[in-house]
Amino acid sequence: MKIIGEALPNMPWQEKPEGLKNAPVWRFNENPIIERNPLKNVARIFNSAVMPYNGEFIGVFRGEQTNGISYIYLGHSKDAVHWTFNEEKIHFVDEDGNDFMPNYAYDPRLVKVEDTYYIMWCTDFYGAAIGLAKTTDFKTFVRLENPFIPFNRNAVLFPRKINGNYMMLSRPSDSGHTPFGDIFLSESPDLVYWGKHRHVMGRGAEWWESVKIGGGAAPIETDEGWLMFYHGVSGTCNGFVYSIGGAILDIDNPSIVKYRCENFLLTPEEWYEERGFVPNVCFPCATLHDADTGRIAIYYGAADSYVGLAFTQLEDVVNYIKENSVLTTQDTEIGRR
Amino acid sequence: MKIIGEALPNMPWQEKPEGLKNAPVWRFNENPIIERNPLKNVARIFNSAVMPYNGEFIGVFRGEQTNGISYIYLGHSKDAVHWTFNEEKIHFVDEDGNDFMPNYAYDPRLVKVEDTYYIMWCTDFYGAAIGLAKTTDFKTFVRLENPFIPFNRNAVLFPRKINGNYMMLSRPSDSGHTPFGDIFLSESPDLVYWGKHRHVMGRGAEWWESVKIGGGAAPIETDEGWLMFYHGVSGTCNGFVYSIGGAILDIDNPSIVKYRCENFLLTPEEWYEERGFVPNVCFPCATLHDADTGRIAIYYGAADSYVGLAFTQLEDVVNYIKENSVLTTQDTEIGRR
Repeated sequence: MKIIGEALPNMPWQEKPEGLKNAPVWRFNENPIIERNPLKNVARIFNSAVMPYNGEFIGVFRGEQTNGISYIYLGHSKDAVHWTFNEEKIHFVDEDGNDFMPNYAYDPRLVKVEDTYYIMWCTDFYGAAIGLAKTTDFKTFVRLENPFIPFNRNAVLFPRKINGNYMMLSRPSDSGHTPFGDIFLSESPDLVYWGKHRHVMGRGAEWWESVKIGGGAAPIETDEGWLMFYHGVSGTCNGFVYSIGGAILDIDNPSIVKYRCENFLLTPEEWYEERGFVPNVCFPCATLHDADTGRIAIYYGAADSYVGLAFTQLEDVVNYIKENSVLTTQDTEIGRR
Repeated sequence: MKIIGEALPNMPWQEKPEGLKNAPVWRFNENPIIERNPLKNVARIFNSAVMPYNGEFIGVFRGEQTNGISYIYLGHSKDAVHWTFNEEKIHFVDEDGNDFMPNYAYDPRLVKVEDTYYIMWCTDFYGAAIGLAKTTDFKTFVRLENPFIPFNRNAVLFPRKINGNYMMLSRPSDSGHTPFGDIFLSESPDLVYWGKHRHVMGRGAEWWESVKIGGGAAPIETDEGWLMFYHGVSGTCNGFVYSIGGAILDIDNPSIVKYRCENFLLTPEEWYEERGFVPNVCFPCATLHDADTGRIAIYYGAADSYVGLAFTQLEDVVNYIKENSVLTTQDTEIGRR
């Protein structure tokens, strides 16, 4: 079993602790890796995405300002654990080079396709929708057309084209806290026009993901299919609980789910996940992974207040997903109606 | 002032009655033109669209079956007032010629672009979304890709391409009765991939359209711009009230609103509009119009139970819209964020 991709020997890693009873996903013992008030005028950094870059690491971070509005901040790190941030939020330009600043920007993902880095985030497009920008140097960020009309959140590109098209997961939503939500897949030949939309999978029968689900980290290409870490939401009498789930999508037709784990892989239980601005949230946005060893590091927002780091190993997590897979017709069909 | 289009001397028409105090839109004196139980197994026909065809008229009709599920039925008429319907609902095929039947189909619009007729309707795409099909002979109906991910309703194509692209209005919504909604515009080079989405206009400050608005009839090309009849919704303590509004969009950049009438053009007041399965609904879906005389006939669903017909005259209605126009920044801007 192997990750199809590059080696990343300098990614962060800790061995699996003894005594793990459930899913083979374990937390970094120095969590949270980003504390409160990380920057002047920024109260919390969370729900953020990182990438290898020039032998070190780079990332786009959701920084919630002390005025309550979220923007995206650029961060750098030598070890992907200790991060320094630019004090200025990322400023975009449009295709003509004119300044473009969204009214807000949250929950960014960062994905490299071919030689370009893409940021997807939740933006204000007369309602919550997906913003999209590209950069090659992390100095100039060019916004592209919004791929979809509102309301939508949790978009993430696949790290390569499939059948010649860019592929993007997203989660249609409503104008508020959205008590529903399934994951869809859309294709684009040019990142301007999108279509061939397909339903990937719906909220689950299981309580932990019965309200809504949404794409998280960019899917990881493996010889078993696309390994997808996503979030699933449970609705309790005191609010939503966000857990991390796992599924494996067909490599050529990723609207077809091959395996879907009926158990969560990680759920809030540590203080930094259970306490915070939004209690009880584990919200995955990115992974680092090493094709040589199968090591995977999952970056997740914790309680809308911190960034947490968890580890797993390809073979362990894929086997766990397969052994605990429960599929419905909505999962396995092509997703066109 | 003139309609840019074809003559249609055989369209239905009645002269403006004397004593009209408000908007220059008046009802056909034989309304409703389609009564209850129009077909075996169909309880009500409403929210339907008609077109000239081979010297007579053709239409696609929302028929709500006695089991409560809506499908689209084909209708023919010599005078566009008296209609006969096919007993069998429209059956679609997919692009490969295989049978395709949506789980439900409601609120169809019918628009001719170049030599092809297109039907847009609200379909089940794991949630309410826009279905799209084409026909050239009204015998074979080929479904095309769903243009957007859910949730969406009230899509209508423009009757010609603009700057080389197909243009479609739609109204993003939620999974239920949707207490919000603005009109957006999307472009497509091929009816498969859609993008360059723009906000056209939002719900109004005026009470009659303060909950949501949605595209209605295909916009009519005039030398003043695109004349758009749409619906606006008011939220009362006893439910929604649907009225007909009017606006004029820029001819080359129809996300820019040139004039928007602050008053409704037609609001429920007759028994067939105020009484029915959904009381208090006037829901425009199509017009017939004659370029020679400027006559316009508006077809609208009444109380989700009947089809009504109303008339107006180009110069009268455009002048009324201009004289009562109130615009916001959201109306006049290009609609990109």
